[in-house]
Amino acid sequence: MNNNSAFETNLDQNQANYTALSPLTYLERAATVYPSRVATVHGEIRRTWKEVYQRCCRLASALQKLGVKKGEAVSIMAPNLPEHFEAHFGVPMCGAVLNSINTRLDSAAVAFILKHAESKVLIVDREFSAVVKAALTMLESPPYVVDIDDPYYTEGELIGATQYEALLDSGDADFVWPRVKDEWNAITLNYTSGTTGDPKGVVYHHRGAYLNAVSNAISWGMQQHPVYLWTLPMFHCNGWCFPWTIAAMAGVSVSLRHVRADHIFNLIKSEKVGYFCGAPIVLNMLNSADDALKAGIEHPVKVMTAGAAPPAAVIAGMEKLGFSVTHVYGLTETYGPSVVCVWHEEWDDKTLEEKARLKARQGVRAPMLDGLMVADPVTLQPVPQDGKTMGEIFMQGNLVMKGYLKNPETTAKAFDGGWFHSGDLAVWHADGYIEIKDRSKDIIISGGENISSIEVEDVLYSHPMIQEAAVVAKSDEKWGETPCAFVALKDCDKEVTAEEIIKFCREHMAHFKAPRHVVFGPLPKTSTGKIQKFLLREQANATESE
Amino acid sequence: MNNNSAFETNLDQNQANYTALSPLTYLERAATVYPSRVATVHGEIRRTWKEVYQRCCRLASALQKLGVKKGEAVSIMAPNLPEHFEAHFGVPMCGAVLNSINTRLDSAAVAFILKHAESKVLIVDREFSAVVKAALTMLESPPYVVDIDDPYYTEGELIGATQYEALLDSGDADFVWPRVKDEWNAITLNYTSGTTGDPKGVVYHHRGAYLNAVSNAISWGMQQHPVYLWTLPMFHCNGWCFPWTIAAMAGVSVSLRHVRADHIFNLIKSEKVGYFCGAPIVLNMLNSADDALKAGIEHPVKVMTAGAAPPAAVIAGMEKLGFSVTHVYGLTETYGPSVVCVWHEEWDDKTLEEKARLKARQGVRAPMLDGLMVADPVTLQPVPQDGKTMGEIFMQGNLVMKGYLKNPETTAKAFDGGWFHSGDLAVWHADGYIEIKDRSKDIIISGGENISSIEVEDVLYSHPMIQEAAVVAKSDEKWGETPCAFVALKDCDKEVTAEEIIKFCREHMAHFKAPRHVVFGPLPKTSTGKIQKFLLREQANATESE
Repeated sequence: MNNNSAFETNLDQNQANYTALSPLTYLERAATVYPSRVATVHGEIRRTWKEVYQRCCRLASALQKLGVKKGEAVSIMAPNLPEHFEAHFGVPMCGAVLNSINTRLDSAAVAFILKHAESKVLIVDREFSAVVKAALTMLESPPYVVDIDDPYYTEGELIGATQYEALLDSGDADFVWPRVKDEWNAITLNYTSGTTGDPKGVVYHHRGAYLNAVSNAISWGMQQHPVYLWTLPMFHCNGWCFPWTIAAMAGVSVSLRHVRADHIFNLIKSEKVGYFCGAPIVLNMLNSADDALKAGIEHPVKVMTAGAAPPAAVIAGMEKLGFSVTHVYGLTETYGPSVVCVWHEEWDDKTLEEKARLKARQGVRAPMLDGLMVADPVTLQPVPQDGKTMGEIFMQGNLVMKGYLKNPETTAKAFDGGWFHSGDLAVWHADGYIEIKDRSKDIIISGGENISSIEVEDVLYSHPMIQEAAVVAKSDEKWGETPCAFVALKDCDKEVTAEEIIKFCREHMAHFKAPRHVVFGPLPKTSTGKIQKFLLREQANATESE
Repeated sequence: MNNNSAFETNLDQNQANYTALSPLTYLERAATVYPSRVATVHGEIRRTWKEVYQRCCRLASALQKLGVKKGEAVSIMAPNLPEHFEAHFGVPMCGAVLNSINTRLDSAAVAFILKHAESKVLIVDREFSAVVKAALTMLESPPYVVDIDDPYYTEGELIGATQYEALLDSGDADFVWPRVKDEWNAITLNYTSGTTGDPKGVVYHHRGAYLNAVSNAISWGMQQHPVYLWTLPMFHCNGWCFPWTIAAMAGVSVSLRHVRADHIFNLIKSEKVGYFCGAPIVLNMLNSADDALKAGIEHPVKVMTAGAAPPAAVIAGMEKLGFSVTHVYGLTETYGPSVVCVWHEEWDDKTLEEKARLKARQGVRAPMLDGLMVADPVTLQPVPQDGKTMGEIFMQGNLVMKGYLKNPETTAKAFDGGWFHSGDLAVWHADGYIEIKDRSKDIIISGGENISSIEVEDVLYSHPMIQEAAVVAKSDEKWGETPCAFVALKDCDKEVTAEEIIKFCREHMAHFKAPRHVVFGPLPKTSTGKIQKFLLREQANATESE
């Protein structure tokens, strides 16, 4: 820039014309503009935006009184309850950083996180108090523990020094929370559930949270006052930033402790839920529910799904219910979904199979992601948009994390060359859509040929009796690796053998890509519904060769 | 912030995780994600987002070849044509600052602006070439002039060194435009049509333009692909930032040279226009149109109005047409509308009069305005929210301008105390809505009592025969000032006298507030449809006292 330009002289930032971007302003505005609109629902408990705001002020004030300082972590391990929603605001309102812990972790992993984050306070729900109790014994300086005593859940122990409601009572509803001065300051900390090594602490900042909240709303074409159901865990990329989206749109946050079809359908009907997110596995569960549960939904429902490409049958089932499915993609490092499979009207007339094929692609950059490419992992040269050449997915811009906590080497590596390295392998289609072919580690190299486990899985999913499938590499003396399939069958009377499934695969793809082994049984999954391939890999290689 | 916090250490901004906010990224994304969707419509001319993007690249490249440097101004004086839309992207894409000139200005005012902005290039439409030609003779270093040769307009002279299409041809469609590095850099320059003194040049930056574009979309609950009709001039706060909103939402920009009811209704029907903006006077014109024109609109249409509170009759007429009206408020200094009269569902059941009264209020802060208050102009102490105490409206945050060009004193004054001083007087209601009572200079002080000219006008508008009304102060020996009304009557056979109108006013308000004088005839208006009260004030005081 021409620094002598009159347009850059005597026109500096000041208090009147510059405010740090922060999603906390969404809550403040919702409370001011819509004080008496319902903000959170949990069973019979309903609170307005003004009430939620005051509770968040109390929480911030109480944490400050407890001695929590700016730039310190406050952890929470809880289901998708109002308290968890409030923590997304109240914790950063005192300058602290919210660390929402994956509720499926064991004590050792929880202890690792609490120690690494140096959490000063831990808010915990009864359902996870046993795990937390054990974790605390492993720490030299355990955090101050606050119990959530959910009236709808009586199991589990209360283990804290105080209870959440008592903590709020100790805070000041008129607390003047310190405004965010620097939008680059940390707002949350999310640990990736890495399959190797220690989990990494992904740090988000106020600016990114503010922008992704709006990017979500635009992606979905959200109207004001969306009713959002919490099927997606809040510990997962801060619920893909939806607590902040809901505040920005003055919507309704509908709590959900357990992802069960009956709860979900009942809440969709009783609360007129218009939006929810979940892995394809959740959609699958809803599709398989009783017709009686499904009946009676007369309003439009939009679903965002990620974690795996939604199979055609899942999309068809959802559409039959009148639910419209948007496929998105992202990583913890990109605030959740930063890539969206934008739908084009002209695709509406295609066959279900064609639609599923188009929708299975991860897509294009979300409204506020600045850069997306598939490129050579070493040279960072973009691959041709030919739908064939494989490369790594790279992202750039405001929806990329601040970095990994206390891990400058890994941070630098992740940002090497000025792009975020996703570690996911994909092709780039002529229309600009990216399609994941595999995680680097999920590629099966058999006789020197690359086999995409996703491609084999797609064929398996097209088998009429297969409910779920995952394919991993199994060591093989002759071929190096061969594909090994794990399948869960649909609940029906018929039977199918491993040989029949292998034959089916050979009929639908190159022979060398067909699995050599088929293992039947339920598939192990992460808390977010992702199939845990590393476990299957272990199992495949422990299995005696045929 | 605790600077030793691990959350602020080794987690700096870099190319991978930080991009300057700029609305230019909206255009780039629309061209990438929706290359073949229609972006601009002008008569039979339709261009896709890819085509528009390439034309903007050519424009930026051509301007650079002409020698335009970063931080220099490029002016345009044109109706709401595709070229004007393109200039909102192509000009800043070469690092220059777009200055869109009010098309109602005379040669002297245009010359003042071109000189003050030091414009290097001026793009001009045939309709305004005569005014520009005269303005150029007043300049020592006139800009390089480019003609727009609109195929649908053959009047007026071509006066430039080249034509717009030839200029584009000289540019490179593959031009790699320099990315915006600093979101605080200027993007546009808009001169206020001040009624006293020289016009002030309001500078916008990329960050504010980016944010207000999205704020607009959220305010209106816009879905993807809005079809937007250009009834609001683009020279007015950059069309309230809607060129950038349309790009962000991958919508359609429908051109309009003249604001005429037949053109508007025909385009609403033929292009399925869903959104447009305009002063109440424009809505009034549409209400008064022939029923034949109005018939046949079967899709929802949303209208944003500002500049004056929409009278009940105007709202009722619009609603009868099925148009939903949102009242917004702002100034050139706040990127156009930064305050919005947010509607609450529970108001739907009120009477038309009550609805009009609620909707006449300016409202609450727009989604991305950070601060709004009514306060004492000197102490900046907020007034009580009692709907009675008058104060000045103040704004704060990212939707407030960068400042006035080459005018540090006025800039400092406007931002005194860390808030932008709007100069508008208002009350603050208990529900947080602000309601303008007057511009400081529009208050009439009669016998020591303040009379709000707006209050008197509201009564006049409720008279069945009055089409338009404006009230100003007239000097009076006894009272200091008295209200003088200027009214334009509806087109009907009946007649009404000044005495009858005064009597009507006295029946509906305190006697001392009723006008002492009534003048009949059409009201002088600015290019944006605002009644020019300073002219009426001169006329009122030139009129012989009765």
